[in-house]
Amino acid sequence: MKIRPLYDRVVIRRNEEEQTTAGGILLPGSAKEKPNQGEVVAVGDGKALDSGEVRPLAVKVGDTVVFGQYAGSNTIEVEGEELIIMGESEIYAVVE
Amino acid sequence: MKIRPLYDRVVIRRNEEEQTTAGGILLPGSAKEKPNQGEVVAVGDGKALDSGEVRPLAVKVGDTVVFGQYAGSNTIEVEGEELIIMGESEIYAVVE
Amino acid sequence: MKIRPLYDRVVIRRNEEEQTTAGGILLPGSAKEKPNQGEVVAVGDGKALDSGEVRPLAVKVGDTVVFGQYAGSNTIEVEGEELIIMGESEIYAVVE
Amino acid sequence: MKIRPLYDRVVIRRNEEEQTTAGGILLPGSAKEKPNQGEVVAVGDGKALDSGEVRPLAVKVGDTVVFGQYAGSNTIEVEGEELIIMGESEIYAVVE
Amino acid sequence: MKIRPLYDRVVIRRNEEEQTTAGGILLPGSAKEKPNQGEVVAVGDGKALDSGEVRPLAVKVGDTVVFGQYAGSNTIEVEGEELIIMGESEIYAVVE
Amino acid sequence: MKIRPLYDRVVIRRNEEEQTTAGGILLPGSAKEKPNQGEVVAVGDGKALDSGEVRPLAVKVGDTVVFGQYAGSNTIEVEGEELIIMGESEIYAVVE
Amino acid sequence: MKIRPLYDRVVIRRNEEEQTTAGGILLPGSAKEKPNQGEVVAVGDGKALDSGEVRPLAVKVGDTVVFGQYAGSNTIEVEGEELIIMGESEIYAVVE
Repeated sequence: MKIRPLYDRVVIRRNEEEQTTAGGILLPGSAKEKPNQGEVVAVGDGKALDSGEVRPLAVKVGDTVVFGQYAGSNTIEVEGEELIIMGESEIYAVVE
Repeated sequence: MKIRPLYDRVVIRRNEEEQTTAGGILLPGSAKEKPNQGEVVAVGDGKALDSGEVRPLAVKVGDTVVFGQYAGSNTIEVEGEELIIMGESEIYAVVE
Repeated sequence: MKIRPLYDRVVIRRNEEEQTTAGGILLPGSAKEKPNQGEVVAVGDGKALDSGEVRPLAVKVGDTVVFGQYAGSNTIEVEGEELIIMGESEIYAVVE
Repeated sequence: MKIRPLYDRVVIRRNEEEQTTAGGILLPGSAKEKPNQGEVVAVGDGKALDSGEVRPLAVKVGDTVVFGQYAGSNTIEVEGEELIIMGESEIYAVVE
Repeated sequence: MKIRPLYDRVVIRRNEEEQTTAGGILLPGSAKEKPNQGEVVAVGDGKALDSGEVRPLAVKVGDTVVFGQYAGSNTIEVEGEELIIMGESEIYAVVE
Repeated sequence: MKIRPLYDRVVIRRNEEEQTTAGGILLPGSAKEKPNQGEVVAVGDGKALDSGEVRPLAVKVGDTVVFGQYAGSNTIEVEGEELIIMGESEIYAVVE
Repeated sequence: MKIRPLYDRVVIRRNEEEQTTAGGILLPGSAKEKPNQGEVVAVGDGKALDSGEVRPLAVKVGDTVVFGQYAGSNTIEVEGEELIIMGESEIYAVVE
């Protein structure tokens, strides 16, 4: 079973451990406002522009990404694993 | 009797069983926020762009799709069966 | 007396009977949220695009259409008959 | 004294009598929500598009038009007569 | 001392007397909702379009104009006289 | 030390005295709604348009400008002096 | 470990000391409304325009910038240091 996101949507496996590792990416502040981190597991073909063109996404499968605090609420379970699905615009940065 | 959606609208038969199958697509979380899953039974000709062009949809009849939690509220009964109608932008991903 | 809608507006004769016919189009759910069905009796010349072009409508006189629940509130009486007037974007699908 | 509306604005003389004539255009429903009817007495040169072009209006002086319920609130008195001024997008249809 | 409005802004000298002259332009209705009238005393170079072009205004110095009820709140005193400054889109019509 | 505004932003030194000079620019009305006046001390390179072009600003360093009442809230202290920073669209006019 | 912002996002190291240095950039006013200052430590490739093009950012790594009061809430910890991530549109100016 495989999930193929549409357009500019991205499927992410949340990285619970990394968030508590000192020296890694940690997102402090109130629980309600903290961004999150995870690994990209699937990406759409790109954003459909009003001009009719499609702009490929800036993230790719395998990237570790940081995303906004409200971006993690749409979850989907694939083969027993809970994944997050969001638009690419909710991703802030790639961690390298 | 047949239903032909306009523009970027899509008609979907909700897949009740799949939602509770372990190892399949399950949409956990609060009842109010969970996405949904179903089969595409009809699609429009495409999104009418401001440029005057029409962009064909990225989903086709027979696709199994996951959609947002607020996308399932417009239902329509065709030959005794309740179907959902929504814009393609409310569909998150295709399950393959 | 004849009514000629402007641009992308459509005049519809609501189909009361069809809504309660089993096997036909029935729009269940709460009374506040249910879509509706009717016959197109007049259409505008098309949507005026920002580019200056006009895009002809996707519905034509005689079509049976399903429309959103909030689309039926603007009524107009022509020769003793109450008709609905709405923008084409409020029409979900054509029933064939 | 003459009034020349700017761009896509239209000046309308409200047709009080027609609204209560059976067999004519009657706009039922609650008083707060009913559309209205009148005669076009002046029109602007056209809508100024973002492209820099001007699109001529679809209504002309002498047309009898039906307009939305919130469109009639801006009134102007010219030579003792109260007229309504509104944008063309608030006009639903022409009665022929 | 001279005031030069930017882009599509217009400076207007409110015409208090004309508003109460029978047979002239009078804006009845509730005090809160009535449009207003005045003389154009300065205009900007034109509206800056997203395309990068500038569209000259449709009103010119000396025009008597009618404007919306909320358009008169930004006042400016030039050489002892109180003037109004507003965007051209808040002007409904020119009185000729 | 120098401040360089980005894009269409403008840095302004508020002109306290001029506001109370009779015969000059005075902005009467309620304290909450009155526009303000000052001297432009720095301007950005221009507004970045969606087309990818940059449109130079219509104000320049040294201009005396009038701006909206809500435009003066973002202040910045440069070498002991409090300055205002705002978008050019919040500037109504240049006083000459 | 390195952070690479997407599109028009910028990573900033907040400059606590500079804010209290007299003669430097100080942002007075209520605590809720004051802008902030910091050093750019990473920038995205540029803003993705609707035309499909990418516009490079106007700030670069090493710039000292002033940003809006609501722009500092999304923080991220990289190698033990708390950084801020925001869109370039929230940056007001570069201090030189």
